[in-house]
Amino acid sequence: MRDFSTGHEWLSINTATIRQQQGEERSLLDIIAQCDRRGIRAISPWRDQVASATLTATASAIRAAGMALSGYCRGGMFTATGEEGLQAAHDDNRRAVDEACTLNAACLVLVVGALPGALQGQALNKDLQLARRQVEDGIGQLLDHARECGMPLAIEPLHPMYAADRACVNTLEHALDLCDTLDPDRSGALGVAVDVYHTWWDPKLEAQIRRAGAPRLLAFHVCDWLTPTTDLLNDRGMMGDGVIDIPLIRSWVEDAGFAGYSEVEIFSKANWWKQPGDKTLATCIERHRQSV
Amino acid sequence: MRDFSTGHEWLSINTATIRQQQGEERSLLDIIAQCDRRGIRAISPWRDQVASATLTATASAIRAAGMALSGYCRGGMFTATGEEGLQAAHDDNRRAVDEACTLNAACLVLVVGALPGALQGQALNKDLQLARRQVEDGIGQLLDHARECGMPLAIEPLHPMYAADRACVNTLEHALDLCDTLDPDRSGALGVAVDVYHTWWDPKLEAQIRRAGAPRLLAFHVCDWLTPTTDLLNDRGMMGDGVIDIPLIRSWVEDAGFAGYSEVEIFSKANWWKQPGDKTLATCIERHRQSV
Repeated sequence: MRDFSTGHEWLSINTATIRQQQGEERSLLDIIAQCDRRGIRAISPWRDQVASATLTATASAIRAAGMALSGYCRGGMFTATGEEGLQAAHDDNRRAVDEACTLNAACLVLVVGALPGALQGQALNKDLQLARRQVEDGIGQLLDHARECGMPLAIEPLHPMYAADRACVNTLEHALDLCDTLDPDRSGALGVAVDVYHTWWDPKLEAQIRRAGAPRLLAFHVCDWLTPTTDLLNDRGMMGDGVIDIPLIRSWVEDAGFAGYSEVEIFSKANWWKQPGDKTLATCIERHRQSV
Repeated sequence: MRDFSTGHEWLSINTATIRQQQGEERSLLDIIAQCDRRGIRAISPWRDQVASATLTATASAIRAAGMALSGYCRGGMFTATGEEGLQAAHDDNRRAVDEACTLNAACLVLVVGALPGALQGQALNKDLQLARRQVEDGIGQLLDHARECGMPLAIEPLHPMYAADRACVNTLEHALDLCDTLDPDRSGALGVAVDVYHTWWDPKLEAQIRRAGAPRLLAFHVCDWLTPTTDLLNDRGMMGDGVIDIPLIRSWVEDAGFAGYSEVEIFSKANWWKQPGDKTLATCIERHRQSV
C-alpha cells in the first residue's frame, strides 16, 4: 500500500467538501484557487458548480493550475415514469459525458437514480425492480456514447439508505453485476466508484473489490461514518472522526490494483460547511496523511 | 398469499409501536388491554417493558387475554471489548431466552450488536470483522441453551445504517450464512426475522427469502420507509405511507412457506408516538388490510 504519511500527492478534493465555507456558497473558481494554493493536485467538481462558473472558465482554470480531475460529479438519475423522461435523462447524461471530456476527467461518476418522484418527497411508484431495469438500460445506452468519447463511466453504489430517492444500486456486488452484463470484456469503459461511506458496512466488500480489479476500480472516495449520524445526507465525518477503518479498505483497493487518487467527499451541514474553507482543507490534508 | 383484506387475524403489534401515546410512555399492561379490546391476537413486547410490568404480571395478562407472542424483543448485543463484557452479554441473553419461554413467544428476536461503545457515541474500536466473529460465537453459545428450552432464535438483519451501533448483520444473506454455519441441519432452532424496513432495498431479497424457507422464516415485520426520512432511528412510517411494496415482499415470504403473523413495528417520534394509541391501533388494523 502506498505511504500517504509523508505528503498529499494522492489527495483529491471533491468540491462538495468546501462548497460551503462559513455557511456561504463558494464559487468553483475560488475553490480551485484554494486547492491550488495548498498544493492539491486533483479535484472532483460537481456539474452545478461547473455550470455556475461556466464550463470554459472551469476548464481553463483547471488547465492553468495543472490539476487533474479524479472524477466528475455526476451523471445518472436514469429513472423516469415515461419515454419522455427517460429520453431527457439520456440527453442530460450525454451532456455530462461531454463536459467530463472537456474537463479531461478520469471518469464520470454515476449516481443512478431510484424511484421517480421520491427525491421530491412523493414516489410515483414503488417498483424498485423497474427502476433497476431502467438503470441498466440507461447505462447501456450511455455507454455507447461514452466509449466513443473515451470517457469511463463509474457506477457509484450508494448506501442502502438512499435506495428510495437517490440510487437503487446499493452494493458493490450489484454494480459489478451491471458491469459484467454491459461490459463483459472488462474494457475499462465501465467500472465503479468505491466510496467508503456507502460500502464500509458490507460483509462482502473485500471480495467484491477483488472481483472488480484494476480495470473496474475507477475511483476511491473517503470520509467517515459518525456515531450518531444525525442526518441521512449531510452529516458525513472527516476521516478519523468516525468508525470506518479507512486504511483497511484502501489496502483492499490497492491490493486489487487501484493506484489513483483518494478523493475526500464530505457533506457536512452542521460542521465542516460552517468552518473556514482553509481550515477544512488543512484538516483534509492532515487526515489524508494520518487516517487514510 | 393469504387474504388480509377482510380481517386482522394475522396482525401482531410490536409494542414499541404504541409504547408512547400522545408523547407519554404507556405501561405494557395498558397496551395489552388496548390490543385485546381491538381483537388483536398477537403482540411482540420489549424486554424493558416486561421488566417494568414484571414478568409474572405480563405472562398472566397475556394468558388472560389469550394472546400469542409473535416474538420477543430482544436478545442480542453480543459484542464487547473483553471476556467480562462477553460473559455479561451471554448471561443477559440466557435470561432473555428464559423470559421468552415464560411468555411462550414464537421466537426470541436477536439484534446482534456492533462496534462496542458506538451506541454510546464513541466506538472503542473499528474492527467490524471482530464484531462479526463475536456475534457468530455469541449466537453459537446461546443456541445450546435455546435448544434445551425449545426457544427458536431469530437473527434480525438490521438496515446497513445501523452497522456501526446496533447490528453488524445487515443483510439476509449474512444472517442465513450464520444459520448455515451454526445450524446446518435447518432444525428450526435458528432462523431469521425479516423486517421490510431493514431489507426492502436488497436486490437479493427475494432469492434469500427463498433460500431461508419455512424452517428459517421465524418472523415478518412491517412498517414503511418514508421519503424523506428525517431520523435514522425513529422516523418509520405506517404501512402505505412510504415506498416499500409490502405485499410483494409478503408474497415472497409466504411463497417460501411462512404462515405466521405480520408484526407492525413502528418507531415514530414525530408522528405516531404523538397520536392517541387508539388511533394508531385503528390505523394499523386498517393498513394491515389495505397495504400489507
